[in-house]
Amino acid sequence: MDSSVKKDRPVILVTNDDGITAPGLHALVDAVKDLGEIIVVAPDSPQSGMGHAITINQPLRLDKVEVYGTHLWYQCSGTPVDCVKIAIDKILHRKPDLCVSGVNHGSNSSINVIYSGTMSAAMEGAIEGIPSVGFSLLDYALDADFSASKVVARTVAKNILASGLPSGSLLNVNIPKLQLSELKGMKVCRQAMAKWREEFDERMDPNKRKYYWLTGKFINHDKGEDTDEWALANGYVSVVPVQYDFTAHHAIPFLNTMSYELEKLD
Amino acid sequence: MDSSVKKDRPVILVTNDDGITAPGLHALVDAVKDLGEIIVVAPDSPQSGMGHAITINQPLRLDKVEVYGTHLWYQCSGTPVDCVKIAIDKILHRKPDLCVSGVNHGSNSSINVIYSGTMSAAMEGAIEGIPSVGFSLLDYALDADFSASKVVARTVAKNILASGLPSGSLLNVNIPKLQLSELKGMKVCRQAMAKWREEFDERMDPNKRKYYWLTGKFINHDKGEDTDEWALANGYVSVVPVQYDFTAHHAIPFLNTMSYELEKLD
Repeated sequence: MDSSVKKDRPVILVTNDDGITAPGLHALVDAVKDLGEIIVVAPDSPQSGMGHAITINQPLRLDKVEVYGTHLWYQCSGTPVDCVKIAIDKILHRKPDLCVSGVNHGSNSSINVIYSGTMSAAMEGAIEGIPSVGFSLLDYALDADFSASKVVARTVAKNILASGLPSGSLLNVNIPKLQLSELKGMKVCRQAMAKWREEFDERMDPNKRKYYWLTGKFINHDKGEDTDEWALANGYVSVVPVQYDFTAHHAIPFLNTMSYELEKLD
Repeated sequence: MDSSVKKDRPVILVTNDDGITAPGLHALVDAVKDLGEIIVVAPDSPQSGMGHAITINQPLRLDKVEVYGTHLWYQCSGTPVDCVKIAIDKILHRKPDLCVSGVNHGSNSSINVIYSGTMSAAMEGAIEGIPSVGFSLLDYALDADFSASKVVARTVAKNILASGLPSGSLLNVNIPKLQLSELKGMKVCRQAMAKWREEFDERMDPNKRKYYWLTGKFINHDKGEDTDEWALANGYVSVVPVQYDFTAHHAIPFLNTMSYELEKLD
């Protein structure tokens, strides 16, 4: 472990996917700074939408950053998942006691959990056996107001440090764009069955070749009142436990009825 | 839809993460070519380890490829997930009847499902409501022998076209590095609880700056005989149903015991 990290307090790894200069990351550090020893390892550039990508075809850079004054800050040239992996192997040489990711500028509710670098960093922490949580604010603005998010992040982090999390799970916490006084509270939810309907924006470049921007409309088909989308639309912070066992156990009996005889190709 | 696609046969979208020139992709096309109308939309460069990444900070290119003769082939500058999204929105203008991804050069069993571009492409298909499956051969070699994989892929594709898949699920099919005659059969399994222990390889560049290559050891902690790792180690093709509802439903009761009172920061 970096020798300036004290060992008698919880070690808290902080990361994100918007990059080391994102205000949401600095808000998260501020929210948890007196709960333990803080080590920040964040991407050196924005990594939104990276999902659970890892960097295997090129090497990574890892550099200490001094300009933020307090705590230990590192920037990494890789993805959010790379940041968690390299933090454990090359900086901490042990598992931290808590891994917090975010605060993301923009929602990671419902199906967005699978596209989200913020949540993938937290999932990587959980796979490593670290109590882990990702925080996202429903506001994409660079100058978003993180004051309520900081209270939420601190509350959840204290809870987890005190009580841990059920085996094999991490938390996906999304925060409505509201003042603290307007929040109705926090609600444990399931992931809503929602999706994006893609509408690629087709344009012509100066050389008359087509190019496409990914855009889309978010569509929530799920009318349940136990979902994260319902909670967020009704003024609650949503807390969804997430797992990295992706097995669709409910599908196994049906699949066992199929015939799997392997016939030679002609 | 591209006007050369006939509408009276199943439309099969084929993609991968190793890129449009990978032998595994061409083997997969060969395996399913007479089961329907084939449209290939694959990355124009290798995208291994991209997980569920999407491209949001730069535009995409999409070009028809003529050199492979038969079928419709397109290459896309984005990730495997981008390929599925743009195929539906800009080429097919409808959902295909089946989405097959692979055959990946290398395993995507157990925890590798979450890092895999091959499986993320199939998962994107499933989110869109398309019966979807990813195939992977336990051989990283570029000149791997895909003859048994082709029989497996054809068998599974025929099964799915005939019977569909349970709602909310897709298949993760891994194939041992064996001849067809050596395969013991196919086995429906759950995802093994296994993980990677990272060991970054630290090197010095010519300018005396450190850089790191991601490496690691695969560790299977799971002794269950109902897992994909067990099946593969014992000569079976593993078939794991995968879901994109990541909710850890088992964790909800515990989380509901926590206190979530939001205290103002000082």
